Amino acid sequence: MALQLASVKLWADNKNTAHEAYDGPVLRVAIMGLGGYGTRVAGAMQYCTKAKLVGAISGTPKKLTDWQDSFGIPAKNCYNYQTYHQIKNNPDIDAVYITTPNGLHHDMALAVAKAGKHVICEKPMALNAVQGQEMVDACKAAGVKLLVGYRMHFEPHTLEVIRMRKAGELGKILFFRGLCGFKIGDPKQWRLNKELAGGGSLMDIGIYAINGARYMTGEEPIWVTAQETKTDPVKFKEGVDETIQFQFGFPSGATASCLSTYNQNNLDKFFLNGEKGWAEMQPSTGYGPIKGRTHKGELNQPVTTHQTVQMDEFSDILLNGKQPVVPVDGNEAVKDLKIIDAIYAAVKTGKKVELSL
Amino acid sequence: MALQLASVKLWADNKNTAHEAYDGPVLRVAIMGLGGYGTRVAGAMQYCTKAKLVGAISGTPKKLTDWQDSFGIPAKNCYNYQTYHQIKNNPDIDAVYITTPNGLHHDMALAVAKAGKHVICEKPMALNAVQGQEMVDACKAAGVKLLVGYRMHFEPHTLEVIRMRKAGELGKILFFRGLCGFKIGDPKQWRLNKELAGGGSLMDIGIYAINGARYMTGEEPIWVTAQETKTDPVKFKEGVDETIQFQFGFPSGATASCLSTYNQNNLDKFFLNGEKGWAEMQPSTGYGPIKGRTHKGELNQPVTTHQTVQMDEFSDILLNGKQPVVPVDGNEAVKDLKIIDAIYAAVKTGKKVELSL
Repeated sequence: MALQLASVKLWADNKNTAHEAYDGPVLRVAIMGLGGYGTRVAGAMQYCTKAKLVGAISGTPKKLTDWQDSFGIPAKNCYNYQTYHQIKNNPDIDAVYITTPNGLHHDMALAVAKAGKHVICEKPMALNAVQGQEMVDACKAAGVKLLVGYRMHFEPHTLEVIRMRKAGELGKILFFRGLCGFKIGDPKQWRLNKELAGGGSLMDIGIYAINGARYMTGEEPIWVTAQETKTDPVKFKEGVDETIQFQFGFPSGATASCLSTYNQNNLDKFFLNGEKGWAEMQPSTGYGPIKGRTHKGELNQPVTTHQTVQMDEFSDILLNGKQPVVPVDGNEAVKDLKIIDAIYAAVKTGKKVELSL
Repeated sequence: MALQLASVKLWADNKNTAHEAYDGPVLRVAIMGLGGYGTRVAGAMQYCTKAKLVGAISGTPKKLTDWQDSFGIPAKNCYNYQTYHQIKNNPDIDAVYITTPNGLHHDMALAVAKAGKHVICEKPMALNAVQGQEMVDACKAAGVKLLVGYRMHFEPHTLEVIRMRKAGELGKILFFRGLCGFKIGDPKQWRLNKELAGGGSLMDIGIYAINGARYMTGEEPIWVTAQETKTDPVKFKEGVDETIQFQFGFPSGATASCLSTYNQNNLDKFFLNGEKGWAEMQPSTGYGPIKGRTHKGELNQPVTTHQTVQMDEFSDILLNGKQPVVPVDGNEAVKDLKIIDAIYAAVKTGKKVELSL
């Protein structure tokens, strides 16, 4: 656990949220899928005020005992993939955060809903919009809520730009540009496996540009065009995209131009242009400190640990009915999945795809 | 002439090129079309070492006498559009710089070539590649040279990034992004007249992103896709583009994503990404000081008056056979025009257009 603990220490150093006195309800969360991102969330949750990591679900017994040690999780709140349906009988768990590979989200979300627990699902919520809608419907039928790990929807610099846009400080919005990507390593990882990932860079990192295009402009795209480029068909197999450029048109006439890639570093840039002003963010969606400036100068919002803030906010949403500035629910995720479907269709057909979200 | 003289003073303040002792040949230039850009070139040429403004061609007699006063041009070197073919009998003029509206370039260039003078043509060189090739052929047949006003091809920050790319300091090139545009004013200007401009923003400002994509990556595009958006069909009539997004693919697998618009300020941004490093320029093509940074830090090349440097370099090219780092001849311009033709075709058909330059 040396690596995990080191990570937790780092987050503590980065931490910037005040531990205010809080005596409201606390969201008790089990994490399902104890890989890299699950571990990151677990570390970040150590600094939550309104949410608490209380359970774990994994197919690897050693991981469960490690998490019991590292995060003080009681053995009674640990499950494997054969037993986790029994979580319905556990009154000490309110919600399950699914951080498994994309291709497993759908079935697991349905099982968690069936167990009567709120579902928190990492993005992308599913492999396509049909799966996503089934998850929304299943949670509704089960009387549980469905939230998606859109950590940027709570990020202070991001929210400040959204505030400025809503207040008219940028004037009429004309253009959004999002460049998202990184050079991916190990060719054997699940993110490069079509069945588990559902695609390639677009599912994992390009989705941030889709999110950004929507929350920065405040509009939904009405058309999509897209172009794929593949330079390494061995590493990026059939159905696993290496690089996709995509473009959106919005009802107002604004446009967006985005890049999604698993083959470039030095990206993570947003640019929002309006008639009266502009905003640039770089890094725009990474885990580290987000930086940005507008026509008015540097943005100086607090630096936060995104997953800590997200989980406290999720607690408020699930337990107190709070309405977030940018939605983080299943319906929001279905819109992203419809756009992803449209981008892949545009790549395949070479044609503009009309959308109605 | 108050405005013109004020402009000349401004350029002098901005000036940064040393007046070194020079006793080589001087290129004697007549400017044809004494509008805004012709006047800018005339002002900048007052600081040239190797080129000299010696003649003027205009349909407005008052402009010719004004230029005689302002720039010390002898009356015998002034022509109108009925008389300028007589320039062939004038031994004191080496070249004619055509700064008239785009739609006039082709016929004027053919006439200047016929008069036996070198042709310098402002960009875009013509309305389409067919016209451009005719200009190249006519100049070749007449034994004169044809250069195009690609001022950025001599800009020091630009050349430094090109040097770094060629030296491998950025590694394999992966991506270029160019955002070029401005909010255009007077709806009655020739730039918004299809016959005179040949199109809209793409002809005038989008071409800088095309140029940039080529000289920054060092490759020629093999495919083009493009999407047009028009929010003001009254101002931007049929055939006059307001906003076009376009994308290129290159033989190496690198891609480019560009925006051309007459409806947004706050742009003028280049970004070049490689496996080992990156370069950003902003402003990237404006008249004012170009600024840039790379993964190694800020670029601190000299600030130049682009048109002054361009005309000194053109003198070296025309009179001394100098080879520029980035070509500025008619063949180079035909490539840009083929790309422009392809972008308009891609907009019209909605399909990817293959290119072979």
